[in-house]
Amino acid sequence: MDYQRVFSQAIDRLHAEGRYRVFIDILRNKGAYPNARCFAGHNGPKPITVWCSNDYLAMGQHPKVIAAMEEALHDVGAGSGGTRNIGGNTHYHIDLENELADLHGKEGALLFTSGYVSNEATLATLGKILPGCIIFSDALNHASMIAGIRNSGCEKRVFRHNDLEHLEELLAAEDPETPKLIAFESVYSMDADIAPIAAICDLADKYNALTYLDEVHAVGMYGPRGGGISERDEVAHRVTIIEGTLGKAFGVMGGYIAADRMIIDVIRSYAPGFIFTTSLSPVLVAGVLAAVRHLKSSSVERDGQQAAAQMLKDLFAGAGLPVLPSTTHIVPLMVGDPVKAKKISDILLAEYGVYVQPINYPTVPRGTERLRFTPGPAHNEAMMRELTQALVEIWERLEMRKAA
Amino acid sequence: MDYQRVFSQAIDRLHAEGRYRVFIDILRNKGAYPNARCFAGHNGPKPITVWCSNDYLAMGQHPKVIAAMEEALHDVGAGSGGTRNIGGNTHYHIDLENELADLHGKEGALLFTSGYVSNEATLATLGKILPGCIIFSDALNHASMIAGIRNSGCEKRVFRHNDLEHLEELLAAEDPETPKLIAFESVYSMDADIAPIAAICDLADKYNALTYLDEVHAVGMYGPRGGGISERDEVAHRVTIIEGTLGKAFGVMGGYIAADRMIIDVIRSYAPGFIFTTSLSPVLVAGVLAAVRHLKSSSVERDGQQAAAQMLKDLFAGAGLPVLPSTTHIVPLMVGDPVKAKKISDILLAEYGVYVQPINYPTVPRGTERLRFTPGPAHNEAMMRELTQALVEIWERLEMRKAA
Repeated sequence: MDYQRVFSQAIDRLHAEGRYRVFIDILRNKGAYPNARCFAGHNGPKPITVWCSNDYLAMGQHPKVIAAMEEALHDVGAGSGGTRNIGGNTHYHIDLENELADLHGKEGALLFTSGYVSNEATLATLGKILPGCIIFSDALNHASMIAGIRNSGCEKRVFRHNDLEHLEELLAAEDPETPKLIAFESVYSMDADIAPIAAICDLADKYNALTYLDEVHAVGMYGPRGGGISERDEVAHRVTIIEGTLGKAFGVMGGYIAADRMIIDVIRSYAPGFIFTTSLSPVLVAGVLAAVRHLKSSSVERDGQQAAAQMLKDLFAGAGLPVLPSTTHIVPLMVGDPVKAKKISDILLAEYGVYVQPINYPTVPRGTERLRFTPGPAHNEAMMRELTQALVEIWERLEMRKAA
Repeated sequence: MDYQRVFSQAIDRLHAEGRYRVFIDILRNKGAYPNARCFAGHNGPKPITVWCSNDYLAMGQHPKVIAAMEEALHDVGAGSGGTRNIGGNTHYHIDLENELADLHGKEGALLFTSGYVSNEATLATLGKILPGCIIFSDALNHASMIAGIRNSGCEKRVFRHNDLEHLEELLAAEDPETPKLIAFESVYSMDADIAPIAAICDLADKYNALTYLDEVHAVGMYGPRGGGISERDEVAHRVTIIEGTLGKAFGVMGGYIAADRMIIDVIRSYAPGFIFTTSLSPVLVAGVLAAVRHLKSSSVERDGQQAAAQMLKDLFAGAGLPVLPSTTHIVPLMVGDPVKAKKISDILLAEYGVYVQPINYPTVPRGTERLRFTPGPAHNEAMMRELTQALVEIWERLEMRKAA
C-alpha cells in the first residue's frame, strides 16, 4: 500500500481537470471597502479591488460592528473558553439568539460556529430524531445541506431545482404517515435565482411536511428588517426552520437556525456539531449583534447593494458579456470552462488589480464554470465601468464568444 | 404524523434521565481570570469563580493576544468575507499555518473553523481518498472523530482505550495491502490520561498504517514549545497528522491539522467542511498567532498550570474526595450519577459562587458522571482551599461516600 501515490494521484486529477485551486493572499483595508492588498506573487502588497466578497454590505467594516467587537474584546477577552454547555455560554450568545429569533419572528434561535455546521448539524439531527423521515432536497442545495442530509441516514428525494411539480410528484408518492422534510434555499448563490417559498409551504401543508429554508445569501439583504426572502414575501411564519449565516451580510462569522422553542431545544440537546465544540468567540458575537441591530433599522445598505447590482448587470449586458439573468444581488458571468475561468481571473488580478475568483466544480456543475461578481453599496460606477472595459478586452483577447 | 409529539418525547427522555442541560449565563472578566459574572437566576450579575474553562492558560485574556486582535480589527475589519478559496484567504491565515507547521515540525498546516470540523472533515476525507481504508479508533475518541470516521464510510475497528495489545490484534487481522489509519488522542480530556504515542507509532510502522493524533487538550500545554505530548515525547515526526485546537490553551477559537505538504493539499482540495465555509475571522487568527508565538517561548504558563493541577489533586485526595488519578492538568472528581452531579454543581454556583459544570452522558459513559476541574496558572491556593472545603461540606450534606 503506497499512500503517497494515492495522495499524489488525487492532486494530479485536479491539475488534469484544470481545477486545482490556488489561494489568493490578501488583506482587506478597513474603511476602504472594496479595496484590499494582495501579497501573492508580488514584492510587497499591491492594491486591488475585491469583486467576490460575501461581506455583501461591507458590515464587516462598519464602525458600529468594529466598536462592539473592541468593547467585547476588552470586557471579556478573546474566546469563550468552552462549549455552550461547559463554560462557553455568554450573555452575548443569549442576546444574539434573542435578536435572531425576533428577526425571523420565531420563538427561538441557536448559534453554531458556521453556516456549514448549522446545516450539517440540524439536518443530520432532525433526520435521526424523526423515525423513517424522508428528506426532499432541491437539486442545487449547498454542500453543507447535502452533508447534513447524508449524515442523517434518511432516504433522500432530490427535486429538480425550484420545480414545484416535481416536488409535489415526489411528496405524493410517499405514505402520508411518513415524516417528511423539504430542504431548500431562498437565494441560490451560484445561479442567483430565488425559490417560490410560499408555494413550497403550500405543498408542505398539503402533504404534512416540515420545511427547512437556508437563507444565508438573503439574511440582512432582503425584507424590511433584513429577515431575508421569507420576510420580504411575508412567509417566515410558515417555514419550520430558517437557517442563516453571520459571515456574509452580517460581516463576521458563524451560523444559526431560528424555529419554535421545542425544535431549538431538540437540536441544542442532540446535535453533536453543536454540543461538542467551543462556542463562537464573544467578540464575534458582539460584532454580529451590532450588525443585525443596525440592519434591522437601516435599509441604506440594502438599497445601495440592489442599485449596484442592477447597474453592473446593465453594463455587462450592454457590453455583450454573457451575464446570467438574475433578480438578486449576485452577478454571474458564464465562462463554461475551468481553465479559461481561471485564466480570466489571473489576468484581471495581474493586469487590472481586479480580484474575482473563478468558480469551478465542485462548487458548480462541470461545464458551467463562471466568474461570480458581488457588487455592494461601496462599488461605485467608475469601478464598474473599468471592470466592464477590462472584461471586454479580455474576452476579445481570448477570442471568446459574446452574448447574442 | 405528529411532529410535536416526537420532538416533545425527545426532550422528555432527557428530563427522565436527569441529563437535560441548562446553559449557565456568564461573562468572564478580562484581566481577572478566573473570575466572571453570572446572570442566570439572579437580579443582575453575580461574581463567580470559573473552574471548568478550557481557556487552560488564560491566553484568551493575555495582553499580547488582545493587542493583536485589536490591531487586526482596525486594519482589516471583522470577518474574512469569504471561503479560503473565494476572497477569504488572508495573510494572517497563511502566517498562522506556517507558525503551526513549525510548531509540530511538519511541512504544512491547515486551518478549520473549529477543532470539531478539523476532525470531522479530515477523517471523513482521508477515508474517502484511500480506497477500502480501515480506521482503527480508540474507544474513548472524541465525538468529532467518531463523526468523521462514520462520515468517511470506512470500516471501523474500535480498540480498547490505550490498549496496545488489542490494537495490534486488530491490525494484524487485516490484509497488509489494505490502507489503515489509527486515530487517537494524546490527552483524553475526560479521564485525564495520556496515550502511548511512540508505541502506537511502532505498531503503525509494523503494519504500514497512517496515524492521526488529536492533541486538542495538549497543544500549548506540553512540550518545550507547546507542541503537545508528541513534542514532549519527541515523536511528532513519526505521527502522520497532528490535529489541534485554537480554542483551548491558545484561548481563541478554531482548529487545524499539521502534516506533510501532500496531505495538506489533499484535504485542502477535497474536504467539503474546509472548502464550503467562511474562513476564520482574521481577528481571531491574529489573536491565535500571538498566543502560539508567546507559548513557543514562554513556559511560565505551562509550569503554573501543572503546579496548580498538582496542588488541587493533592487537596482533593487529602480531603478524601474521589478524585480520579491523573498525570495531566485535568482534575476529574467522580460522582457516578447525573442527578447528583447536577445538584452538586447547582449548590456550588448558588451558595459558593463556584462554577463547575456537571459532565453527563453522552460526553462520558452513563454511570461515570463527574465534575471536571481545570485549574490554571491563575487559580491560587486560597481559591483551591475554599473549593475543597465547599466540596467536603456538600459531600457530607448529600451523604455521599468519600474515597477509601
